[in-house]
Amino acid sequence: MEFPDLDYLFQPESIAVAGVKNADSSFNPGLMFLEALQDFGYPGRMYPLNPRGGEVKGLKVYKTLRDIPDHVDYVISAVPAKNAPRLVEDAAARGVKIIHFFTSGFSETGNTEGTKLQEEIVRKARELGVRIIGPNCLGVYCPKGGMTFNANASKESGSVGMISQSGGNASHAIAEGNSRGVRFSKVISMGNGVDLNESDFMEYFAHDNDTEIITAYIEGIKDGPRFLRAVRAAAEIKPVIIFKVGVSEVGADIAVSHTTALAGSTQVWEGLLKQAGAVQVHSIEEMIDMTLAFLHMSPPTGENAAIAGIGGGASVILADEFSREGLSLPRFSVKTLEQLIGLYSSEAGRIFKNPIDINNFESPDTFLKTIKMIEEEKNVDFLVLHVAFDHFGLMNEEIKELMIGVYQSLIIDIKNKVNKPLAVLLHSFASDKTKEMAREIGETLTKEGFPVFLSIRSAALALKRYIQYQKRLQPGGVA
Amino acid sequence: MEFPDLDYLFQPESIAVAGVKNADSSFNPGLMFLEALQDFGYPGRMYPLNPRGGEVKGLKVYKTLRDIPDHVDYVISAVPAKNAPRLVEDAAARGVKIIHFFTSGFSETGNTEGTKLQEEIVRKARELGVRIIGPNCLGVYCPKGGMTFNANASKESGSVGMISQSGGNASHAIAEGNSRGVRFSKVISMGNGVDLNESDFMEYFAHDNDTEIITAYIEGIKDGPRFLRAVRAAAEIKPVIIFKVGVSEVGADIAVSHTTALAGSTQVWEGLLKQAGAVQVHSIEEMIDMTLAFLHMSPPTGENAAIAGIGGGASVILADEFSREGLSLPRFSVKTLEQLIGLYSSEAGRIFKNPIDINNFESPDTFLKTIKMIEEEKNVDFLVLHVAFDHFGLMNEEIKELMIGVYQSLIIDIKNKVNKPLAVLLHSFASDKTKEMAREIGETLTKEGFPVFLSIRSAALALKRYIQYQKRLQPGGVA
Repeated sequence: MEFPDLDYLFQPESIAVAGVKNADSSFNPGLMFLEALQDFGYPGRMYPLNPRGGEVKGLKVYKTLRDIPDHVDYVISAVPAKNAPRLVEDAAARGVKIIHFFTSGFSETGNTEGTKLQEEIVRKARELGVRIIGPNCLGVYCPKGGMTFNANASKESGSVGMISQSGGNASHAIAEGNSRGVRFSKVISMGNGVDLNESDFMEYFAHDNDTEIITAYIEGIKDGPRFLRAVRAAAEIKPVIIFKVGVSEVGADIAVSHTTALAGSTQVWEGLLKQAGAVQVHSIEEMIDMTLAFLHMSPPTGENAAIAGIGGGASVILADEFSREGLSLPRFSVKTLEQLIGLYSSEAGRIFKNPIDINNFESPDTFLKTIKMIEEEKNVDFLVLHVAFDHFGLMNEEIKELMIGVYQSLIIDIKNKVNKPLAVLLHSFASDKTKEMAREIGETLTKEGFPVFLSIRSAALALKRYIQYQKRLQPGGVA
Repeated sequence: MEFPDLDYLFQPESIAVAGVKNADSSFNPGLMFLEALQDFGYPGRMYPLNPRGGEVKGLKVYKTLRDIPDHVDYVISAVPAKNAPRLVEDAAARGVKIIHFFTSGFSETGNTEGTKLQEEIVRKARELGVRIIGPNCLGVYCPKGGMTFNANASKESGSVGMISQSGGNASHAIAEGNSRGVRFSKVISMGNGVDLNESDFMEYFAHDNDTEIITAYIEGIKDGPRFLRAVRAAAEIKPVIIFKVGVSEVGADIAVSHTTALAGSTQVWEGLLKQAGAVQVHSIEEMIDMTLAFLHMSPPTGENAAIAGIGGGASVILADEFSREGLSLPRFSVKTLEQLIGLYSSEAGRIFKNPIDINNFESPDTFLKTIKMIEEEKNVDFLVLHVAFDHFGLMNEEIKELMIGVYQSLIIDIKNKVNKPLAVLLHSFASDKTKEMAREIGETLTKEGFPVFLSIRSAALALKRYIQYQKRLQPGGVA
């Protein structure tokens, strides 16, 4: 198999943005790309283009690509579809290697004119040696290269790559990931993918040293066998997490309108992707959950969880939801149970079964001893520490922050004292304020290397999938 | 059937709080209840109790109930379990009708001492004519009576009642509901329910004029046949939404430790509750989703949805998730399709199938015409307007707020111009900031009478359940 060298897409030294309208235009995507790059601190040279010339954002506006007195590495196009073929010609004439077409109005419209225009730009690009990202997409986000299409995205680089057939979902994944401590190496919103497509990027990410985990939002696939080969090859090297949509009959029909991709039935795709070794998810949130497990959790060898934390009602729901996903909560041995009860000065409000409801903390020492006791149970494969934030409903803000702060320190403190795989679950919020607190604590704990989940159901689902993935890697393993 | 008159629980004129420790105690639930009531503006008279006397929060501390020179309607107990029997005697001597025991350490511990103490307080209370809420619970939240256990809860009254066997989940439901525009009439956290239990409260809410929708978080049921009779009777009068947990084997075991309740298998309970006419949910969030549908959506007569909004990738996911829940997205007639295309100046980036991706708005008039066109399709039973906030990823803050503001106005504007049932879905956030924006817009739209959902999956699930419920109400209807 070839490994396409697409590094040049992610760190261009100069960018021209075609179709930057006057600053007072109401919808001005060209200007938005320019501003996003400026705000993000793109380190290269930028050239806005508009047939009328002028100046915008402190930059001279050139009338055509041919007028720019510099080599241009990369073109972002926000010109109308009908002007796209001309842009390809100009780019070729100036030795530009790649055009990202934000421009839509091609085959996704379903009309003859759009389809013809698309065929024309692809034919011209192939003839003239220009590559295309899109059309109908947001292009590249790569913190290392200072590239972005999402003004709010983190400037910090990470190890997660993403291929997305929807610009919206790429933005959503970056936001959801950033908010939960995930950082990306390279994200590509590829739209219709008329030239560079999902298979090219899958092959690229498989061998990209900046990328340790590959994620993908896929509506449909141009060349099924090639894509499945690319996924299989990538999955042998690093985890591949795929959110495949357009699996319902109506969804597939819409996917064709959205990005012209050919979709397929649920069963067919789920089976094929599983065989190829990909982990499948059904939402962007689930994709980020899985990513966090891969990033920060050592692999459990089985389904047996020991859960400890605070929240009695939450313990019942935890037991239900973990059981529903096929995870087990083994009973502790009588010896452990007796030791646990002996550890606490009062039993009131506590539950010493699995999940353990610690209710309130006695001391860091008691907390650590509790965790070590359940860790040492033979039939426990991994640990989950949880805090039900609804538990703090009655408390005033001061005590609440104190309690939550204590818990955060306790968790950080045990990081190096526990050997079995460990996950943290912060959930069931008693106010918008506690929700925000949980998000901040989650960010801190993720920085400390914990996988943090924000709902009981999403934790159970991600942990189950993670364990299934690990089992498949074992000799003779079948998911 | 009797209808228990429990109004006196929710609007007591005087409250004594037993077990208020010195202000410098680290865990002081008695003081927390006192503070929460003060902050909430409880309008009646309050009497803290502690054997040492003194003063706290500007109030004289009495040594025993017998020393208070006033009639006491309601006692909140934070005393240790071993002192509970004495408190029941004192209460009876002073003619107190009800004690809410926050105190835990009874049968939920599983030990003989706790179980004996519980039997003792129940026996004494029955002999002496005192009723008990709890033990091991947070008690009453009722804005009308100025009662609360959650300092952050809304002071505004609403029409939703809740029975909860977990204080944490009651707090969580209030917070989640308040954050999404739901207001409560009365919430009761009833813990072990040794005296007043889930059946009493279900019977009460069925006939409570302040309550139009009954919700319940149930771990287990003391008297199965009585509870099912109560649910059936209530469901004939108003919607009953039940989140039944402890349905897995482990969950049931934990539920016994949590509140001594006897649980039962998933299949058995789901079947019985369905027969009784209750809507079942599997999380607090789903409970609030269902509540919003009942509060603000006129009943659809079938599963056929027409969806319109912004977000192309989101449209594909919408189609998938709605199909997964058994909802239909019928194709529009050729005539409607042609009219739709004719309405817009450009097709670029739009999708004119169902879901319609409007992408960007032309004008309020175009938007209204679009909605009216799809509403008039014969095979459309209800409408969903959605905004994928990831669509705004590229935009700067100013344009983003402008666009989102436009959309909010457009939705409010069509409220009285659309006759078919209508739901709003705000989802897929491109940043924490857009998530907060969506929450605020959701609150505004809910105040305007729209049911607003915050994820594609939760909208599909709630709408499906709502339609199933309505079908069952029709002559000869079966869910």
